[in-house]
Amino acid sequence: MSTTINVPPGLRNVVVTETTLGDVRGDEGFYHYRQYSAIELARSKSLEDVWFLLFEGRLPTEAERNQFIADLAPLRVLPDEVRAVLPAIAAAGPTFNPLAGLRTALSLLAATKNLPPLWDADPARRKADAMLVCAVTPTILAALYRLREGQQPLGPRGDLTAAANWLYLVTGKVPTAVEATAIEHYLIATVDHGFNASTFTARVITSTGADLVAAVAGAIGAFSGPLHGGAPDRALASLDEIGTPDRIDDWVRAKVEAGDRIMGFGHAVYRTDDPRSLMLRDIARGPLSQGPGGDLVDFATTVEQRIVDVLAELKPGRNLYANVEFYAGVVMELCGLPRAMFTPTFAVSRVIGWSANILEQAADPKIIRPSAQYVGPPPPARVE
Amino acid sequence: MSTTINVPPGLRNVVVTETTLGDVRGDEGFYHYRQYSAIELARSKSLEDVWFLLFEGRLPTEAERNQFIADLAPLRVLPDEVRAVLPAIAAAGPTFNPLAGLRTALSLLAATKNLPPLWDADPARRKADAMLVCAVTPTILAALYRLREGQQPLGPRGDLTAAANWLYLVTGKVPTAVEATAIEHYLIATVDHGFNASTFTARVITSTGADLVAAVAGAIGAFSGPLHGGAPDRALASLDEIGTPDRIDDWVRAKVEAGDRIMGFGHAVYRTDDPRSLMLRDIARGPLSQGPGGDLVDFATTVEQRIVDVLAELKPGRNLYANVEFYAGVVMELCGLPRAMFTPTFAVSRVIGWSANILEQAADPKIIRPSAQYVGPPPPARVE
Repeated sequence: MSTTINVPPGLRNVVVTETTLGDVRGDEGFYHYRQYSAIELARSKSLEDVWFLLFEGRLPTEAERNQFIADLAPLRVLPDEVRAVLPAIAAAGPTFNPLAGLRTALSLLAATKNLPPLWDADPARRKADAMLVCAVTPTILAALYRLREGQQPLGPRGDLTAAANWLYLVTGKVPTAVEATAIEHYLIATVDHGFNASTFTARVITSTGADLVAAVAGAIGAFSGPLHGGAPDRALASLDEIGTPDRIDDWVRAKVEAGDRIMGFGHAVYRTDDPRSLMLRDIARGPLSQGPGGDLVDFATTVEQRIVDVLAELKPGRNLYANVEFYAGVVMELCGLPRAMFTPTFAVSRVIGWSANILEQAADPKIIRPSAQYVGPPPPARVE
Repeated sequence: MSTTINVPPGLRNVVVTETTLGDVRGDEGFYHYRQYSAIELARSKSLEDVWFLLFEGRLPTEAERNQFIADLAPLRVLPDEVRAVLPAIAAAGPTFNPLAGLRTALSLLAATKNLPPLWDADPARRKADAMLVCAVTPTILAALYRLREGQQPLGPRGDLTAAANWLYLVTGKVPTAVEATAIEHYLIATVDHGFNASTFTARVITSTGADLVAAVAGAIGAFSGPLHGGAPDRALASLDEIGTPDRIDDWVRAKVEAGDRIMGFGHAVYRTDDPRSLMLRDIARGPLSQGPGGDLVDFATTVEQRIVDVLAELKPGRNLYANVEFYAGVVMELCGLPRAMFTPTFAVSRVIGWSANILEQAADPKIIRPSAQYVGPPPPARVE
């Protein structure tokens, strides 16, 4: 008879799998992709380089980078069968739901492209499917947004980097170099980040041998959950709510007293500064702040410092710092992204991380199937 | 610093959560829903009764049953916004993919109906969303099939039971009482079954606070994986492949030698007869076998017994018996369901089990977030 194994609630610290993709060292405020500091990669490499690193296991040569970019261009174009349905997807419901829309469109894409179960696909096919899904995700999300806004979707621009193309697809303007670089930093820094709930979901589904979109669609679902974290528009909404520096203290105290979470602060793993937050703060306070958004940056900096201090006083020992959400919202706002597209911007990078995790998990043909403990009254009961 | 906890691969026997929904006792060949033997429920109750039992915690009174059935009828009707897109979903791809189609349509439904995060929804709203998703799933799946076949989708029949309505929606004929009862037994017996990978996926996504369809869409993905098990058409395909009784032994030996799995045999939990298989064998050998399908039933019985014997010889101690797949395919074939709709029939019942698990998990606001162990070379590497 099998014996069950009891572990901490929520599987906290329980090791499900081994990975060579990277690691988050919460106590050091450090995380890496395949040995490379993610922040250092963000500061010196392109999103395509990091994407290649995660998929191929090493950084590309110049020739490989060029080939990779050339391969990507046609994959960004939506198949006609999916494009035809986008207006209906974009129009669905009283409020715009870009993550549900992305899931809908990718599900349709999976059927259209006849994606094989990962179990049946060789590594080359798996990687090709992953490239397609990651390349087409920004095209879908931006098209849904523009359709919902009553605008025509734009075609992807092969002459732009992945980051610049994303800003162009959403805003309709080719971004400045400062804007494109800022968003590229953000995208690189958020490609992957340990074993969060969406990444775990993708790996569980992958372990059944299902197709790649089945795993990505599940990950999108987990990603959309409020407890997953990482919705940069929520932190910016807090700044709006606070309004002026003199109201910070009262606002934080009221939140803490009501038992509400303060969006943009605290992290499941970091017990010190979130390195993504530090990087994004630097970006916000750099050239981007020279424009009309300078006041927002000053205000955000004041709010961040004050919130950290008040939280340290009210919740001593909890080590609550700004997380990736807080300055991400500020940076996206300064780059001209509409708030509805903040979380979708996160999805544009994270889908690459999910895919890398799916490719890694697919190499291990073992299903992830834990147990539940029945705690109801003992059977049998009589069926009358 | 947090310490990681190592557990068996695939989280085998690791307890993730407590449940009062039911339990599978693999060594006894017994499983129950809320204390009631599932097989006994299948033999004496309606699918609506069991659905009520799982959602409400007890079997309904006569009045409650009637109210439940009355409440269900309008929920089976597809919203216009989703119906309008079904032809495009059904037509997608070179081969019909009903599970991807269901996921696409439910994703669209979630946006159309503006489903709130479970985190924000009160229990009544959660249950209402679950009722909707379970009620509309057969309508979607049958419509996709008929559209793909070039036929008009049919409207759900409020005067039929859930089981009879399903057969009607797919085949266009009101089933005989024998057919409807056979499928109802199957549907009840497959509503839930412990902590399989799709149920686990649904609970992980739920634990992020995402909406109900996010969790169901993820579960559909896991369910579609070949390792999840439970695709009744695969077992029937094996019967076709074997062809005649004299070929059984050679076929099994060749499969085992090639290291292939024999579909319809063996189970992750059962080490004795799968009680679902025993029930379905009885059903197949009952009144259903009086019709033109009698030969199929005789052949299946012969094949089952012979495969069990040969496997006992070739894989001693493994205790491989027919699982739910094996006779499910036979029963569905005898009831006139097309093979493309075998796995979707499983989804029609299992979506109720997923939803019951989602409702239970949603009451526990704790994220399921395990860890991965980094096993690559140590960082940092220099970014050149």
